[in-house]
Amino acid sequence: MDASLIDTLEAAFHAKAIAVVGASETPISFGYHYMRHLLDYGYPGRIYPVNPEKSTILGLKAYPDVSNIPDTVDYVICCLPATKVLELLTQCRSRGAKVIHLLAARLSETGRQAAKDLEASILREAKKLGIRLIGPNCMGIYYPRGGLGHGYDLSREPGTIGCVFQSGGSSTLLVRYGELRGLRFSKVISYGNALDLDESDFLYYLAHDDETKIIAAYFEGVKNGKKFLKALTDAARVKPVIAIKGGRSMAGAKAAASHTAAIAGSAIVWQTAFKKANVVIAQDLNELVDLLVAFYFLPKITGNRVAIVSAGGGLTVMAADLCEEAGLVVPPLPEEIREELKVRAPEIWDWLNNPIDGSAVATISTGFPETLMEITKILASSPKFDLVIAEFTDDNPFQEEIWSNVAKSQTEAFINLSRKKLNPLVAVVSSGITDSKRCRHGRWKMLAEQRMRLIDAHIPTYSTVAEAARAVSKFINYWKARAET
Amino acid sequence: MDASLIDTLEAAFHAKAIAVVGASETPISFGYHYMRHLLDYGYPGRIYPVNPEKSTILGLKAYPDVSNIPDTVDYVICCLPATKVLELLTQCRSRGAKVIHLLAARLSETGRQAAKDLEASILREAKKLGIRLIGPNCMGIYYPRGGLGHGYDLSREPGTIGCVFQSGGSSTLLVRYGELRGLRFSKVISYGNALDLDESDFLYYLAHDDETKIIAAYFEGVKNGKKFLKALTDAARVKPVIAIKGGRSMAGAKAAASHTAAIAGSAIVWQTAFKKANVVIAQDLNELVDLLVAFYFLPKITGNRVAIVSAGGGLTVMAADLCEEAGLVVPPLPEEIREELKVRAPEIWDWLNNPIDGSAVATISTGFPETLMEITKILASSPKFDLVIAEFTDDNPFQEEIWSNVAKSQTEAFINLSRKKLNPLVAVVSSGITDSKRCRHGRWKMLAEQRMRLIDAHIPTYSTVAEAARAVSKFINYWKARAET
Repeated sequence: MDASLIDTLEAAFHAKAIAVVGASETPISFGYHYMRHLLDYGYPGRIYPVNPEKSTILGLKAYPDVSNIPDTVDYVICCLPATKVLELLTQCRSRGAKVIHLLAARLSETGRQAAKDLEASILREAKKLGIRLIGPNCMGIYYPRGGLGHGYDLSREPGTIGCVFQSGGSSTLLVRYGELRGLRFSKVISYGNALDLDESDFLYYLAHDDETKIIAAYFEGVKNGKKFLKALTDAARVKPVIAIKGGRSMAGAKAAASHTAAIAGSAIVWQTAFKKANVVIAQDLNELVDLLVAFYFLPKITGNRVAIVSAGGGLTVMAADLCEEAGLVVPPLPEEIREELKVRAPEIWDWLNNPIDGSAVATISTGFPETLMEITKILASSPKFDLVIAEFTDDNPFQEEIWSNVAKSQTEAFINLSRKKLNPLVAVVSSGITDSKRCRHGRWKMLAEQRMRLIDAHIPTYSTVAEAARAVSKFINYWKARAET
Repeated sequence: MDASLIDTLEAAFHAKAIAVVGASETPISFGYHYMRHLLDYGYPGRIYPVNPEKSTILGLKAYPDVSNIPDTVDYVICCLPATKVLELLTQCRSRGAKVIHLLAARLSETGRQAAKDLEASILREAKKLGIRLIGPNCMGIYYPRGGLGHGYDLSREPGTIGCVFQSGGSSTLLVRYGELRGLRFSKVISYGNALDLDESDFLYYLAHDDETKIIAAYFEGVKNGKKFLKALTDAARVKPVIAIKGGRSMAGAKAAASHTAAIAGSAIVWQTAFKKANVVIAQDLNELVDLLVAFYFLPKITGNRVAIVSAGGGLTVMAADLCEEAGLVVPPLPEEIREELKVRAPEIWDWLNNPIDGSAVATISTGFPETLMEITKILASSPKFDLVIAEFTDDNPFQEEIWSNVAKSQTEAFINLSRKKLNPLVAVVSSGITDSKRCRHGRWKMLAEQRMRLIDAHIPTYSTVAEAARAVSKFINYWKARAET
């Protein structure tokens, strides 16, 4: 891996001209999808649809084959079936193409010999011609800054998360779900069967990419273990790498072979490699999003003493359990905070503890939610805690009309507090799965709005304390391990 | 525990007349809330607001104290502060009250001696007068069939889940979140400090209650270990008991003491007791809801061989991993199913496996989604599997307009299949946290609608494969253990 690899991939990400081979106007075809993506995401370069049967595609002049394009083409998106790829390669060479994204599936992952042979021939031919391949059996790249998309309805706003994903569909899901949680992405690469360019190449590229601050990965297998270990370790040394290993189980490994022809390898070997490289492990896309939310929004934290502000008595108990079980420490309130509480909450200063029961504060006479926010501020200012987790719920006895005003002012005060750069704040909005049609009196809607405001204010926001505690604990462990090396 | 306990509690649940002491028209007071609940939930009996300063409350004649009520009162909801409870007890006796719900907090849970003494006096006096107490420091009862509510915006539709909850707020959250997942409740009892009637009494009552088929519980501590073990074991012998133990950790145990004056006890002792009684353990409210969804909608299952229908390649891999990790078995497709696939999906019969990759099926020429549903039906009909988990996601390359029609017909076909009483079906709708304001092109809205249809059709529906697999696995283990005793 060297500078030429970076140049090659930069040529794809910053292509001045792109050919879409197999471009189409049939709305369920990939040739249509990728044309739409270039148009929808605002790709600023020249687009050349290739289709021997059409003179225009979506209003753009179409060419019968790549050789006919009167321009240099940097990047080719190939939507043709695998059997037609070989003849395409020479044409692409003639237009100076550096990288081809091969969408075609039904290759070695089918387990069929003829498909494996075809894949091998494609690789041989590409190597001979000096063309690099992304795929086959993949969705290619999403690069919002460059107007490249690999799925519908992805954000056009760029961010700093780079992705190396063996599964294309999962990478689009990650971007969509991530967006709802405030995450934005720099470059997403779905690489499928990794016939030529592989996971190690993409890791190397993203490790050196200034637009990428965090790397998220989904691996099923690796082509070259030694090369991979080096790429992974080097990448994890310079930026956080958070990875899912697909195919940990017996059935999962079989599914990986059918999906990307990957040899899943021993789950223990993978786990050890991840641990050694200080790669943060996620079990699935949901946990990956939870972890990314921590890495995206929180400053570095190396201590694990958490102060918790909860909304009800039972919730304080469960929150304490879940945080301790996730590896966080929930210390009692220190003496100096009790002294402050004597002033702020004279009726309950001796009774309150960590976690703080917001419902107890809500019934005292000295004012709510101001008092609760004052207490939160005291916790956020204390050197005895490393972070504050605050649970926003509808666990309150009030009718929605009254609560919604309280909730709104609470949310705004929390956001203001987060800007003071005290101990980092994490929010839990326990909205369950909100479902607009079933909203009654707007209770779920109110929680959804609270969640949205917090996310827009760049506060790491989770649905449950369990998810928040697990993500934050892994996040802290990452920084601890990094501090020790 | 005996028949008189049942009679006593029946008198509360089926009260012909209820007094609300401390009834009020101040919208943030409990005296207002409980008046509203009786009116809102359609309580059919006679309501007597008690307030010495008002002649009417919410349009009903108010009485200066309970002694003035010209009627027998079966059940009293007391919203007065703890200091006023003692004098109330004698008045209640004079009207024949059998059970009083004491809302008042700030008692032994504060750790203050005066409060503990007051609590002890209240118990002594109640015992002397033969009046039973629910609470103090609790929200009391929710009984939709009887028009009793203990929080706003709870469903008026009754179901078969009975709850014994030491935390009142958490019990209202359970009912609200549960409703979004299709759960409905028979009787919910929040019992707080368990001064008189305790967790064992309520377990005994629900175990004997014909309206209750499943018991959900949240315990922080117990008053009498031996009595509790017997009540728990007896209850779990006749119906599934799913329980959260709050206060498993050191910080959680401290929080429990401040919340309900509970002595949390050793986490290991609790775990052993739960295991011995075949009580299903939930870590928090979210997992409790997930487990209840399995118990509420699934028939008994004692085998753990799962067939999975997934929507994308990476998703099949992760689904297999998550199911195996949760203790389910994901067997390969049996020969006879492969033979059927030769007919249904001739292009990919050899390639498909368990989990089925729906995206591979989507691209074959023999018709989609019909083919995918045919395959799902084959899996649901096979004696080689005990259940089918089907993942509905937006992991598809299509624009929303096209996909939404496919998704709709898929959902309806799935619901029809579920009515055929083949292997039980579980749905996963990976909608993340839907958030109506951020819907673009209705993608999230579509998933929310799909979810809703499935839930309305009484199909157990989860947000993630991980949650589904964990819940279903515990569900199956419950039935296995029960079959072995």
